[in-house]
Formats: sequence, structure tokens, C-alpha cells
Amino acid sequence: MSKIVTIYHSGYGHTKKLAEAVHAALQGAGADAELIAIDAEGNIADGAWDTLSAADAIVFGSPTYMGMASWQFKKFADASSKVWFVDGWRNKIMAGFTNSASMNGDKHSTLHYFATLAMQHGGIWVGPALKPSNTKSAVRDDINYLGSYMGLMSQSPADASATEAPTQGDLATAKLFGERIVEVTRRLAG
Amino acid sequence: MSKIVTIYHSGYGHTKKLAEAVHAALQGAGADAELIAIDAEGNIADGAWDTLSAADAIVFGSPTYMGMASWQFKKFADASSKVWFVDGWRNKIMAGFTNSASMNGDKHSTLHYFATLAMQHGGIWVGPALKPSNTKSAVRDDINYLGSYMGLMSQSPADASATEAPTQGDLATAKLFGERIVEVTRRLAG
Amino acid sequence: MSKIVTIYHSGYGHTKKLAEAVHAALQGAGADAELIAIDAEGNIADGAWDTLSAADAIVFGSPTYMGMASWQFKKFADASSKVWFVDGWRNKIMAGFTNSASMNGDKHSTLHYFATLAMQHGGIWVGPALKPSNTKSAVRDDINYLGSYMGLMSQSPADASATEAPTQGDLATAKLFGERIVEVTRRLAG
Amino acid sequence: MSKIVTIYHSGYGHTKKLAEAVHAALQGAGADAELIAIDAEGNIADGAWDTLSAADAIVFGSPTYMGMASWQFKKFADASSKVWFVDGWRNKIMAGFTNSASMNGDKHSTLHYFATLAMQHGGIWVGPALKPSNTKSAVRDDINYLGSYMGLMSQSPADASATEAPTQGDLATAKLFGERIVEVTRRLAG
Repeated sequence: MSKIVTIYHSGYGHTKKLAEAVHAALQGAGADAELIAIDAEGNIADGAWDTLSAADAIVFGSPTYMGMASWQFKKFADASSKVWFVDGWRNKIMAGFTNSASMNGDKHSTLHYFATLAMQHGGIWVGPALKPSNTKSAVRDDINYLGSYMGLMSQSPADASATEAPTQGDLATAKLFGERIVEVTRRLAG
Repeated sequence: MSKIVTIYHSGYGHTKKLAEAVHAALQGAGADAELIAIDAEGNIADGAWDTLSAADAIVFGSPTYMGMASWQFKKFADASSKVWFVDGWRNKIMAGFTNSASMNGDKHSTLHYFATLAMQHGGIWVGPALKPSNTKSAVRDDINYLGSYMGLMSQSPADASATEAPTQGDLATAKLFGERIVEVTRRLAG
Repeated sequence: MSKIVTIYHSGYGHTKKLAEAVHAALQGAGADAELIAIDAEGNIADGAWDTLSAADAIVFGSPTYMGMASWQFKKFADASSKVWFVDGWRNKIMAGFTNSASMNGDKHSTLHYFATLAMQHGGIWVGPALKPSNTKSAVRDDINYLGSYMGLMSQSPADASATEAPTQGDLATAKLFGERIVEVTRRLAG
Repeated sequence: MSKIVTIYHSGYGHTKKLAEAVHAALQGAGADAELIAIDAEGNIADGAWDTLSAADAIVFGSPTYMGMASWQFKKFADASSKVWFVDGWRNKIMAGFTNSASMNGDKHSTLHYFATLAMQHGGIWVGPALKPSNTKSAVRDDINYLGSYMGLMSQSPADASATEAPTQGDLATAKLFGERIVEVTRRLAG
């Protein structure tokens, strides 16, 4: 049974909702899944580091603020340098997701950073591998309406509460993303 | 009078339409503007290199294909290495735009490449500097609905002809983008 | 036995030498390896597409010219859109390498592009997972002296022939990179 | 007289030394320059925001930790969202520098982030515009030995104190970088 940890920071609740959707999909697909929130000061409980080290796969999540993952997520990433020195996450499957208010809003930047972090740790990167919905008949609630490949993107209007957004389409995309992570982790981790 | 050259490649006509909108905005704002198309083999006329060298500002345009500017644009960029050796484009204002079928579709990747190319040439990079339209009441034809900052993005559905897309909103965004390029070029180039 | 294809473009021979070092490492580690060169016009033989489709892993290689993979490599990437439409490379292991004259020289940009291309194809990305050599006692021929994570980097002085560079250190790094690709491909592809 | 603010975070003193070199060059070239340090908690004094708002140019500096600017820098960037809402930094010249232990070490990633941040703020991006030193006769203390274009890079061995590194070559490169920022700021800001 694959152990998969979703670790995320959320500022206003949208990324939390997205994280929960990914987490539920991981569980639904049969993974031994854990969900860890980075707090408002960028910290996680000491035990969380052990949970991460024991995982077969780690999924990073953060809002995109000012063109990049939040500082709280980055504080976690910087703290992972201790793990880096001992190659503690080497060969884990890694993936990532982000939410912001705009369709683009430099979310690509955050996802590329997650992949950069993964490669520093010697991880193996997996994206959603979902075709985009981009014809004239496409609607906002289609799977991968945002057309993202490096990881999962969701978009929540600037004035939408976390009960209003991410929308069903983005959450359905999150479900498929989680299922893919389980599928690939199983093949690699056995 | 600022001399501004828009140089672009277009595969199916959407980027051409976007290029024409930027070009018209440059002219409308009082620039001495030229529009140069990179052909289907990635070439431009010999004289076009002189036109580029004489410009105060250069605006790059390309569709995003397979996550990056088209090979035809890249062939032009590679050919610009001759100019690079002699610092021929140093201190020119540079900017860029791209179109693809998806909302994201890795357009960010193309715009970051344009900025990378600009920095290799010693250029000065200008983005659209437009606030995104990203509230619940946002509609597709709003200015900067796509939420792009590094350059201008437009999105044309995969099955839309070049008469159908880019849409009015993206073309109106292109107009403001062109006006901004003229404003900044004037301040820098006098 | 894992089938692994290295596909590359080389302008002056340095990237070719690097490609051969990766290829030899793949063979040495027991893979059924093939080496395909993209020609000076950006084309590959028709049969090469079948070879790629049959692979468990694909390794991309290109020089970094003007801040990105060469136009010939991009022409190949653009041509792979036919494969993209039918998900022909889904779940293949993918990795990449690049060479340029400077220590940095925007090689990062090329490697990030390779990962972007891989994610569009639904691939699974693997980096070298090698610690950098970056203490005061580090020397140019150390493993991963360049400190790259997203893929393999080599640096060949602008006036060095392909018999002089890449140097032994970069080639030794290429060997470890190839061995890692085989190791991960075996675990995923069986 | 151009007002130019260098704002940076430094963890171990190397980036501080680089920041001081840039700052000295700004002063030496006749700018009204200020140097602001982001503290270990990612904060700056309240008055520092006013200083930034009054500037003609802002230069960002941070070490590259785990593939990106430090969390302290990012905390500052996130806090700048208040300025973003009111377009407080629109049209300022912006530039950036970073230091890390490896030759590459994903410094490109940090510099691209700085440019992303600048574009969100409607800034105008300037790089060092320095040719790289990359022939066989190149030595570590040459100008732009690292071959960076998007901003200034320096490399300080992992076990070198801030009195040992950055080296003279990187500091000399910082001087030219500062001078260029003054030159471009003068042309734009008058």
C-alpha cells in the first residue's frame, strides 16, 4: 500500500479545499494517505518530517502569491535542506498543485518551482497527464480547463470564498490528478 | 519618433492577428512601427535585420507550441546570435506576446523565454502592466482576463479560425500593451 | 530489458559527445539503448518515430543556443505534437541534458523546457539526483561541478573543439546520469 | 539624481557582501542609493516601504536556497501585495542578484522569479548586459564568468566564509551591474 503525503499551505482556504480533494482521491484510489498543513508561520509539527520521510510520494501544494509559492511554503522548502543533506527524499514520487485568482497569474512559476525543489531532492516528477479542454465548446467546469501540464492548477476568483471555489471542474481535475499519482507511485514503489 | 518593430511567427493566423493588433496600437500611439513576419521556414528577409537593428524597441511574438515558442521563432532567435556577438540590440526595449489554445498551455514558458532572449541581447524588458480581471463578475472579454504579467497572452480555441479568435478582449488587451510599449520606449529612447 | 532512446541535436559536436556518453552509460547499465540524432534541418528518419514510441524512456539532448534548446530540437518537439494527440508517449520516463559555453548560459532554461515538453506528453521526469561539488576544494572535473538538478548540464568553452570538451568530469557525470535513468526506468517499466 | 534602493536578504553574509558591492556601485555612479536588509524573520522596518515607494529603481537580492529565493525574501515579496493593489511600484526600473554555493544551483530560478515579481508590479526589467567569459583562457575572477543574463549571479563555495567569497571577479561584476542600473534608470527617470 503506497504511502502518499500531501503537504500544503493555504492562506484563505482555496488551496486547502484543493488539497483535500487531492487527498480524498489518493485515499479513494487505495493509498495510505496523509494530509499535512503548513501553518501560518510556515511551520509543521516535528512528527510531520518523519511522516514525509516515510512516504513513497510527496505532493506539494501552495497558493501562488505574487508570482510564486507562498513564503510559508518556501519556509517549509528551506527547512527541507536538512533532509536534502542526507538524501532523505531521494527517489520519492513528487507532484504539485497551486491555486490563484487569475486564469494564469503566474501559477506556472509555482509549479516549475515545485519541480525544481523535487529535482534538488532527487525525486521523480509526475504531472496530471490530462488533455486540456480548449475547443469552442469548452466550459469552465471541464477537466483541465486551465490547460496545465506541470502540475495541477485551479483558479478561484479573488472575491470567491472557499465554499464557492475551487469549482467542481477544478476539483474533478484534482481527483484525476490524485488517481494518477497513486497509479505511478504503485508502479515505482511496488 | 520611436521606431518599434514587431517580429512574429504565426502558424494558423491567430498570432498574426494578435501581432497586427499590437502593431496597430504602436502606430496609433505615434510610433514609427514595422511589422515583420517570420516565414514558415523560420526565415526573414535580409533587410529585416537592418530594420531590427535600427529599432528603439523590438516586440517578439509566437504561438506556444508544445510548451514553447515555435521552432520558426527559435530559428530566428538562433540567427540573432550574429547580432549578439556585436551587441547590436543592446539597450533596446523588448517585450513579447504569445497565443495558444488553452487558458494556460505553458504560455508562461514562451514569455519567459522571450525575456531570457532579451536579457542575452542586453535589452530592457517591459510587460503589459495591466491588472488582471479575476473576480466573480469577470468575463472572457475583459482586459487581461488571462492574468498575464511577463508579456501579452491570448487564447484561441483549438477549433477557432483566425477570424473567430483571438477575441475582442484579448485584442483590446493587445492595444493597451502596444500603447504601454510606446510610452516606455519614448521615455527611454527620447 | 528497458528500451531507452536518447534523441539529441548537436551543432558543433559537444552535445553529440555528451549524448554518446549518456548512451554508453545506458548500454553499460544493461538497457536496450538507441541513439538518434536530429539533423541540421531539424528532422529525424520516419522510423525514428516508431523507435521513440516503443521506448520505455526518452532522453532529450540539445545545446543551449540563445537561452533555449536549438531550433532543430524545437522542430522535433513541434513535430511530436502528432504523438501528443494520441498520447503516444504517456508514462514514459523522460530526462534531458544540455551543453553550452558558459557555466550558466541559461542552460536551466533548456532543461526546464525539456521537463515542460515531458509533462505535455504525460511523461515522468527524472533528474540526475547528484550532489553538487561546491566546496573550496572542488575542481572542474568533479561530479556535478556545475550544480545541476533538473537534468544534466555540461560546459564546453566557446573555443574548445569537441575533442577537448565536454571534459572528463562532465562526461563522468553523464555516466552516472545514464545509470540513474536505467535504474528508475527498470523500477517503473519492469 | 536617481533614487535606487537595493533590498536584500542574506543568510550567511555572502549575499550581504554582494548587496554592498551593488550598493557601492550605485553610489559610485552617482545615484542616491539606499540599502535595506530584510531581517531573519522576513521583515523590514515600516519606513522602508516608503523608501521603496519613493525609488526610481529597486534591486532585489537573495541567496538561492533549495532552488529559489529565501523564504525571508518571499515574505517581503508577499507583503508587497499591498503595494501591488495600488500600483505603487509601476514603471520603476527593477533588477536582481543572487548567490549560491554551486556554479548553477538553480540561481536562474531565483532571477526569473525576481523578473516575475517585477512584471507583476509593472516594473521595467534590466539585466547586467555583460558578455560572459567562457573561452579556454577564462578564469574564475573574470567579469561574468558565471555567464548570467537575467540578473547578477555570484557563487560562494559552501564552506567559504563571507570574507572569502564572493570573490573579486563576482564583486567586480556586481560593480558593472550597479553602474548599468544607474545608466538605465537615468535614461528612464530623468
